[in-house]
Amino acid sequence: MIAAQVYDAGGVETIHVDSESDLQRARDAPGTTWIRVSGATPAEMETVGRVFSVHALELEDIRNDVRPKTEEFPDHTFLLVKSATLRRGETTFDEEVRTLPVGLFVGQDWVLTLTVEETGVPAVERVWRSVENREGRVLVNGPDFAAYRVVDRIVDEYFDLLSEVGDTIEVIEDAVLEGPDADVLGGLNAVRRDLLSFRKVVWPTREAVSVLARGDAAYVREPTEKYYRDAYDHLVEVVDLTETYRDLARGARDIYLNVLSQSTNEVMRRLTVVATIFIPLTFVVGVYGMNFDGGAWNLPELGWPFAYPAVMLGMVAVTVVLLAHFQREGWL
Amino acid sequence: MIAAQVYDAGGVETIHVDSESDLQRARDAPGTTWIRVSGATPAEMETVGRVFSVHALELEDIRNDVRPKTEEFPDHTFLLVKSATLRRGETTFDEEVRTLPVGLFVGQDWVLTLTVEETGVPAVERVWRSVENREGRVLVNGPDFAAYRVVDRIVDEYFDLLSEVGDTIEVIEDAVLEGPDADVLGGLNAVRRDLLSFRKVVWPTREAVSVLARGDAAYVREPTEKYYRDAYDHLVEVVDLTETYRDLARGARDIYLNVLSQSTNEVMRRLTVVATIFIPLTFVVGVYGMNFDGGAWNLPELGWPFAYPAVMLGMVAVTVVLLAHFQREGWL
Amino acid sequence: MIAAQVYDAGGVETIHVDSESDLQRARDAPGTTWIRVSGATPAEMETVGRVFSVHALELEDIRNDVRPKTEEFPDHTFLLVKSATLRRGETTFDEEVRTLPVGLFVGQDWVLTLTVEETGVPAVERVWRSVENREGRVLVNGPDFAAYRVVDRIVDEYFDLLSEVGDTIEVIEDAVLEGPDADVLGGLNAVRRDLLSFRKVVWPTREAVSVLARGDAAYVREPTEKYYRDAYDHLVEVVDLTETYRDLARGARDIYLNVLSQSTNEVMRRLTVVATIFIPLTFVVGVYGMNFDGGAWNLPELGWPFAYPAVMLGMVAVTVVLLAHFQREGWL
Amino acid sequence: MIAAQVYDAGGVETIHVDSESDLQRARDAPGTTWIRVSGATPAEMETVGRVFSVHALELEDIRNDVRPKTEEFPDHTFLLVKSATLRRGETTFDEEVRTLPVGLFVGQDWVLTLTVEETGVPAVERVWRSVENREGRVLVNGPDFAAYRVVDRIVDEYFDLLSEVGDTIEVIEDAVLEGPDADVLGGLNAVRRDLLSFRKVVWPTREAVSVLARGDAAYVREPTEKYYRDAYDHLVEVVDLTETYRDLARGARDIYLNVLSQSTNEVMRRLTVVATIFIPLTFVVGVYGMNFDGGAWNLPELGWPFAYPAVMLGMVAVTVVLLAHFQREGWL
Amino acid sequence: MIAAQVYDAGGVETIHVDSESDLQRARDAPGTTWIRVSGATPAEMETVGRVFSVHALELEDIRNDVRPKTEEFPDHTFLLVKSATLRRGETTFDEEVRTLPVGLFVGQDWVLTLTVEETGVPAVERVWRSVENREGRVLVNGPDFAAYRVVDRIVDEYFDLLSEVGDTIEVIEDAVLEGPDADVLGGLNAVRRDLLSFRKVVWPTREAVSVLARGDAAYVREPTEKYYRDAYDHLVEVVDLTETYRDLARGARDIYLNVLSQSTNEVMRRLTVVATIFIPLTFVVGVYGMNFDGGAWNLPELGWPFAYPAVMLGMVAVTVVLLAHFQREGWL
Repeated sequence: MIAAQVYDAGGVETIHVDSESDLQRARDAPGTTWIRVSGATPAEMETVGRVFSVHALELEDIRNDVRPKTEEFPDHTFLLVKSATLRRGETTFDEEVRTLPVGLFVGQDWVLTLTVEETGVPAVERVWRSVENREGRVLVNGPDFAAYRVVDRIVDEYFDLLSEVGDTIEVIEDAVLEGPDADVLGGLNAVRRDLLSFRKVVWPTREAVSVLARGDAAYVREPTEKYYRDAYDHLVEVVDLTETYRDLARGARDIYLNVLSQSTNEVMRRLTVVATIFIPLTFVVGVYGMNFDGGAWNLPELGWPFAYPAVMLGMVAVTVVLLAHFQREGWL
Repeated sequence: MIAAQVYDAGGVETIHVDSESDLQRARDAPGTTWIRVSGATPAEMETVGRVFSVHALELEDIRNDVRPKTEEFPDHTFLLVKSATLRRGETTFDEEVRTLPVGLFVGQDWVLTLTVEETGVPAVERVWRSVENREGRVLVNGPDFAAYRVVDRIVDEYFDLLSEVGDTIEVIEDAVLEGPDADVLGGLNAVRRDLLSFRKVVWPTREAVSVLARGDAAYVREPTEKYYRDAYDHLVEVVDLTETYRDLARGARDIYLNVLSQSTNEVMRRLTVVATIFIPLTFVVGVYGMNFDGGAWNLPELGWPFAYPAVMLGMVAVTVVLLAHFQREGWL
Repeated sequence: MIAAQVYDAGGVETIHVDSESDLQRARDAPGTTWIRVSGATPAEMETVGRVFSVHALELEDIRNDVRPKTEEFPDHTFLLVKSATLRRGETTFDEEVRTLPVGLFVGQDWVLTLTVEETGVPAVERVWRSVENREGRVLVNGPDFAAYRVVDRIVDEYFDLLSEVGDTIEVIEDAVLEGPDADVLGGLNAVRRDLLSFRKVVWPTREAVSVLARGDAAYVREPTEKYYRDAYDHLVEVVDLTETYRDLARGARDIYLNVLSQSTNEVMRRLTVVATIFIPLTFVVGVYGMNFDGGAWNLPELGWPFAYPAVMLGMVAVTVVLLAHFQREGWL
Repeated sequence: MIAAQVYDAGGVETIHVDSESDLQRARDAPGTTWIRVSGATPAEMETVGRVFSVHALELEDIRNDVRPKTEEFPDHTFLLVKSATLRRGETTFDEEVRTLPVGLFVGQDWVLTLTVEETGVPAVERVWRSVENREGRVLVNGPDFAAYRVVDRIVDEYFDLLSEVGDTIEVIEDAVLEGPDADVLGGLNAVRRDLLSFRKVVWPTREAVSVLARGDAAYVREPTEKYYRDAYDHLVEVVDLTETYRDLARGARDIYLNVLSQSTNEVMRRLTVVATIFIPLTFVVGVYGMNFDGGAWNLPELGWPFAYPAVMLGMVAVTVVLLAHFQREGWL
Repeated sequence: MIAAQVYDAGGVETIHVDSESDLQRARDAPGTTWIRVSGATPAEMETVGRVFSVHALELEDIRNDVRPKTEEFPDHTFLLVKSATLRRGETTFDEEVRTLPVGLFVGQDWVLTLTVEETGVPAVERVWRSVENREGRVLVNGPDFAAYRVVDRIVDEYFDLLSEVGDTIEVIEDAVLEGPDADVLGGLNAVRRDLLSFRKVVWPTREAVSVLARGDAAYVREPTEKYYRDAYDHLVEVVDLTETYRDLARGARDIYLNVLSQSTNEVMRRLTVVATIFIPLTFVVGVYGMNFDGGAWNLPELGWPFAYPAVMLGMVAVTVVLLAHFQREGWL
């Protein structure tokens, strides 16, 4: 679906786009023209490609969801970024990073946003509506500023996403220290995968925006560069956070292995305590359960008057000594 | 086997190559000449080397299957790339990366492809056939574009290969979380080895193509550079994916160790539960199996009326208490 | 709360700031003017922003606590740094890095410090008081030197913080070698998290100060650069120490895993020693507890005169042999 | 021992070197002079140092076996490389990297090779003999080409060495997956150490040769640079292979830990199966071995007609149930 | 304590320094003046600072033992390096890196060495004595060469230190493969800490010396640069060795974990063998120890003539089968 609005400091006018000539008229209207193509069909892509001299390779890049980048063209600057959200599944730690490509084409007095998602991409929709509502700063600035606002929105989404991942890691870290649990392992795996996917999006985005921030893009005017520099700073922070979270996830996994080993160690100690005490005792009572009866040398103690209490006391004594020993070693 | 076709926007002509003079005629024919040498014998190599001024070191590099690279020569640009496919063995995770060297020589109005594999390399064959079938874009563009098409095909194969490896990793990740299994370890090892081999191919290919993409090759004309830049972008993505998959494989291996430790932990708990309950009880019944008979102090309880039920009840009570304890600790 | 003092080599004058015009008067007073805004409210921020031409994005950066940085503006240099302290909790290893943003704006003959913490930031307060007390070096040097003094204080805090973390790591290292302990794991996790947070502060601070140290800031005069170079050297050392401590923490965690594995190994050996000795013996006494009585072939040894002592001696002999064996293997 | 031969396209002449004046005559003879010093004594070093203006520091570097490097001197280029071979010990995985320093001095029309090993270094000897045998390419090219041939030989040795290490790793990888084995651990350690030693040789060699390859050495003529570039390409490959093999060795070690953990897990399962089945049964038979006889409530079941078969059947039933349970869990 | 000697190719003269004017006279004496301050007191520091225009920050850097560095001043070059030795404790692996700061100030015709250690720093003392003894090369070269000699000495100490650490690692590696041992863990920890401390010294030293080696220091004359380049080469080697040793220590730690896991695995196997054989047998003899006597169906086998030998033979048979099984699996 193709929509267009033309705006300047004075106001906003929505232009109905039904045909290629509508599009040309919108492009040529005085003021800044924003053409928004959402859920772009091949036919629509071809049309806007023709009207705005967009190269087929650019459109293909959006469709194929390749990595974010900036490219300079004779009459526009092309910026491909990706909206990223965390889609949660049904179980506790089941979550996945979902990305949607957003193509931004900034020309002299027009900006073209192109998304292939049927329902539109929230970051684009939101800035579009802020123009509709005649919100101040976008109206007085040119098309490069509108593009910046979309990028800014998307970077905000990145922070939201990271914050959610951070929460998950914190839950996992607490769970890790509390003891072994199969869910936690699945969660660690999910977080690790999320951060790897997210990183694949963020690194190239940082590179792409840095081009605009340092003034290498023909259609980003000098007063707007400051804003792109700000977006770039935020992206640097996003990249840092991603690496920090990866480090935390890795650390949590290592700690988990230590927790497991510690738990196994304790389980083994208990078993050893029980076995060390009772296996010898069982041997002793086994001795007095033997049926030797060949004369005075065979188990004479069975007939002694206080043999039973003596044996029992002896066993209690051994147990006490062993328990004291284990106590001293900190096994109990 | 040497084959040649001469083409331009107007059409394609296949030239029969039997001798060195045929080859010279093909080279000098008007239009773009593509000479395809497949399953190249030493004699054939020498012949084309002579006709197209190809240095002996270049031919040796193809034969020795050295790492991909670009080299500039007075009258042609030499690009050595490698086709890579995944050859699956008979067992689940038995797979191996198989590479075939492809030499591409781009001259003023000729392109020479040289492969040593008997059956030819699919990526080359496919572009060759597209010329035979007079498919549009190759015909109107020069020899540098034909070479690009071969490179593009090979990069597509890389994505296919990575996608297969990605599937294997996913299968392994699921298997890892399901429990210890010797096959999984073999699979992790195979994937790790695949990615290391593949990486050895992809890294230098990226470097080699970057030379063409940034316009440092004399025989790649300016309008074709855009395509090489596209191929370069894809190779960057391939390298990224390779690293991501290596990270995933490493993570899966670490998770596997955790899963194993967890499983061992649980096995030990079961053993400890069984031992902690039954070893003391066995001691108790051993006590009443002793044969002391030396008078009133020796095992008088054996003669008490309700001794047996009392002992049994006592043991049941101990068992219940222990079970409750283990239950509370989450061991059951 | 806004406070101002104007000083030069001759003395210090405190200016009461109640309104925007007070602020303007302070700014225009001869000598160096230091305006300190602590626990800055939005209204105060707006006021100083207007009077000192501070961009809204700078103020927002302080409020949002973004990463440290230096930015050049037409009439001032903006430096955002962070004070960092270690807040200890109640348990042994419960500690957390707490950071407070400090905005430093250095103009031609004024310096503006801006903090949002209600109670003020100690590093700023301390330098402020040293001006009040007419301490020598700050008075004779310009506003860039006052800013340096604040940075220097903050870097000193970094060293203090690292020294505390270093102490914790040392305590943990000793505890690690002494044996498995759940507290230690929590401590390792806490230290790891501290160092990651701290690193996120220190790395960009180093970058930010390096800009001032190499003379790229318009409002840092040449004689002051030497001091910033000194601060930069210290920050390099802080970064080094942070990485070294991270390495130490990681190493401690790996050693801990080894200690645990070793402990488990020893526990298993004990269990194996006990079981290997007593389980066979228990079997033997079980044999002589059997009730066969079907004739001469059934347990005739029960009736032999010295059977019992012989069996007991045999068992002692086996035990001695086994103990000697375990002794030789170093298991005891 | 000092030997010299003078050669050009026309032929080779061996010059007997007994004194410093012989050396000077050899140096000044028309054509290319190659002086080979093998098993160099301090006196010989001093002599050649004097005749060929070789700095004492260079000679010391060869004697002290420092890292490979290239140095430019007024009248010669100094290249220090190292021959490396794998010396196998007596046990399976006992192998060690052995390096021998080779000093190459390339002047205007002379080349000097200097080795300290008594028996000479094979790579040098081999090229020396190829000159003796009047093999084509060396004779027609200058002293820089002779030096290249020695370097090329040494790089070939590197590939041989790596190929041997690769074989060892493959043997280890197979052994690792087959089960725990102390030899394998020693082998992993040996390979790790080999690769670290080898890497210390190869990295600086690559740097040293790159200087010659990019034309920064005064005494390497332009047509020979192509050959050094080839050697450089091979060294890059050697470095790559070294890192790949290190990765493989590391991976094998990690997999080994997993194999061990898995084996321990299986051992524990077996123990747990045996203990879970027989310990409770032993308790049961213990119960009926008790000697209570105090009346009707004491073990009345001992007197029941079918008590024994009933108990036995019950125990069989329990065993069957447990086995089915373990079967279902995949423990058997 | 301040000492001074003035020397040139002709000889050495020691100057008694009691006052600031002595110092000035020494500074202005013809020839090269070396002022050695050892165990420097604050007063002495101030004096030399005044006489040789040394900045207070430099002196503070020496006192605070900050990281090595080179700094350029109008009339001298300041080089801060550190002497490092390994101080061994009483137990086997108890060792620690101890560093002493050495300040080197190189002027036009004077060199000033400043150390704070009471007993002096050996590297400085040694070169000082070689001047006293009129050893050749120092006398004929200027102050920059004397400083080089001190640096050279210190770098030699680094090699000694690394060689000692290398020996320790070798002892540990052998101990690691021989079996689990708590001492080894402590040793690994000590080595790891040593190498981290040492690395913190060596990395910046390399940077500092590289400044002198590449001719960026005003007071290092061109003929002396060659020597600093040599020192730089050695420092590169020291850094390499440090990383290699860190890698070795890390590898030893990983191997140790594997050795431990293997040992645990073997311990468990023994336990399992013993338990698998004797626990079932004990059950069997328990069966025949039961006291059923309720008639013909109750343990009739007790009365059979050859029951006992049959049971014993059956148990031997089971044991043999199990032993053969364990033998086949390689558990014995």
